[in-house]
Amino acid sequence: MSQFDNVSIVKKANVYFDGKVTSRTVLFADGTKKTLGIMLPGEYEFGTDVKEIMEIVAGDLKVLLPGETEWLHIQGEGEFIVPANTKFKLQVSVTTDYCCSYISE
Amino acid sequence: MSQFDNVSIVKKANVYFDGKVTSRTVLFADGTKKTLGIMLPGEYEFGTDVKEIMEIVAGDLKVLLPGETEWLHIQGEGEFIVPANTKFKLQVSVTTDYCCSYISE
Repeated sequence: MSQFDNVSIVKKANVYFDGKVTSRTVLFADGTKKTLGIMLPGEYEFGTDVKEIMEIVAGDLKVLLPGETEWLHIQGEGEFIVPANTKFKLQVSVTTDYCCSYISE
Repeated sequence: MSQFDNVSIVKKANVYFDGKVTSRTVLFADGTKKTLGIMLPGEYEFGTDVKEIMEIVAGDLKVLLPGETEWLHIQGEGEFIVPANTKFKLQVSVTTDYCCSYISE
C-alpha cells in the first residue's frame, strides 16, 4: 500500500546517530506500531525489544542479522526480519527509506 | 498537540538535498496537508507553491524570509510563515525537526 489510513502520527521525530537515522512513529487503531524512517550512509548497530519486520522502501544497504556471518545485500526494495531482544548491524551506502513493523508476540 | 489522529500518512519519504532534508506527508480528513521533516546541518533554499507555516519542533537554524535582509534565528522551538510562490533560505546548524502546514488560500 502506498499510504496508511486512519492512523495517528507522533509529531516529534525519533533521532538517532546525530540525526543520520531518524524516524516517525505511526500508531494503528489495533494498537500496533510502525516507524517510517530514513537512514543516511553510515554504519549502525541497533537492538530490538520486540520482533521487527524491516521493509526497505528504497535504498542500498547490507545487513548482518543476529547469529549470521554473511551480510545480506538489499538494493532498491527488500525486507528482513529481526528477532526480539537481539542486535543487528547495518552498512548503509545511500539514503535509505524504510518502514519498520513492531511485532509483539 | 503531541500527535495527529485520524490521518493518512504516505509511506514513501520525500527526499531533498541528497537526504539531508527529508519529510513525511500527512493527509488530514479535511483535505489539508502537513509534512513532518528533518533537516540536517547545511544551507538550503526552498520555494513555496502555497503559503507555508513552518513550525520548528526542535533545532537551531537561521531563516531568510523573502524580501528580508536580516536572518531570523530560531533556537529550540519556533515558527515562521512563508508566502506562496516565494523562496526562502535556511542555515541549519543542528539536526532540526519540523512540521510544515500547507495553506491553500
